[in-house]
Amino acid sequence: MLRLYDYLESGNGYKVRLLLTQLGLPFERVEMDILEGETRTPAFLAKNANGRIPLLELEDGHFLAESNAIQWYLAEGTALLPDDRRLRAEVLQWMFFEQYSHEPFIAVLRFWHHAGTLAEHGEAEIAAKRAGGEAALGVMERHLRERPYCVGDAYSIADIALYAYTHVAGEGGFDLEAYPAVTTWLARVRSQPGHVPITEPVGGP
Amino acid sequence: MLRLYDYLESGNGYKVRLLLTQLGLPFERVEMDILEGETRTPAFLAKNANGRIPLLELEDGHFLAESNAIQWYLAEGTALLPDDRRLRAEVLQWMFFEQYSHEPFIAVLRFWHHAGTLAEHGEAEIAAKRAGGEAALGVMERHLRERPYCVGDAYSIADIALYAYTHVAGEGGFDLEAYPAVTTWLARVRSQPGHVPITEPVGGP
Repeated sequence: MLRLYDYLESGNGYKVRLLLTQLGLPFERVEMDILEGETRTPAFLAKNANGRIPLLELEDGHFLAESNAIQWYLAEGTALLPDDRRLRAEVLQWMFFEQYSHEPFIAVLRFWHHAGTLAEHGEAEIAAKRAGGEAALGVMERHLRERPYCVGDAYSIADIALYAYTHVAGEGGFDLEAYPAVTTWLARVRSQPGHVPITEPVGGP
Repeated sequence: MLRLYDYLESGNGYKVRLLLTQLGLPFERVEMDILEGETRTPAFLAKNANGRIPLLELEDGHFLAESNAIQWYLAEGTALLPDDRRLRAEVLQWMFFEQYSHEPFIAVLRFWHHAGTLAEHGEAEIAAKRAGGEAALGVMERHLRERPYCVGDAYSIADIALYAYTHVAGEGGFDLEAYPAVTTWLARVRSQPGHVPITEPVGGP
């Protein structure tokens, strides 16, 4: 059975959890306390030298890291990843946008709030994180004003990638009411068959 | 003809330039002065709402952003992207590693040096960038000690993705002599047929 090394509050972990659930793939979930350094032990670093969750252990014992690479692996050949060459590249475009222009701002501010470490960061650093997050939400707002989903006219792993941290952006202090097209799209993603909330510990044991 | 909106010093642009050259695909290169805001004009934002290069304009007029998504689009069906499902996911794993754990540290420090803006950043911020870059190089060093290329036993777009900013890490103050396996791999990448240096303005007009 597939084994997912995960952390329940992580949006990156949630992407894989949600996708596995929507694809109906059984998996064992192993919770790692990242705040206690459980992903930086020699045992875990032997599995993923970059010391991060999510990490997927395949049935043949190979490990796969990076949430969006794992999504690609799992979604290949399913309705959640288009067949068309250009649309596939657009899925990747939005997943790279998510990891470079969205997650480092929106997810990081949320993490500082959750971990109680916001006060350790300077005002300028926090303001830069906020500006980066607002810019990413602005790009999404303009994109989603004209289409129902991130890529083409169908729900895909690009939507899962961007939903993961966007829908909890409020936990990092962002006001999603300022982004009505994003808010409508969030509801559309939430209405997909098999959707599960971020903190629901799906998967076994 | 393919048209690449680019900036010669950019490692992200270089990935696409190098790949197009190695694949023998003709293209027109349009230099954008990012320091003068040429990627933030209304005309450019209509092409890429995220306001960044590289941006590839396809022959049918569609635009594709994000260096590694562009690489994937161009390399599909060539020897630079494996056929095997797991190896393809590993290529993506290393390209996401590059954009999340490598570029934001190594490329950003180099950019601050080039743009002459290093002094605008605090000591703690610079130290954090340096630590992140050293961590990324450490992950690469351990990975490349045991294999000739990033994925499988062949040169791929994962190598191009990581070569782009690694080989100029010294321009950001990193000492590559501390990473002998990385240094050996850099020479191996440089010896590939059709290799061109980062500042060579390949492509027309």
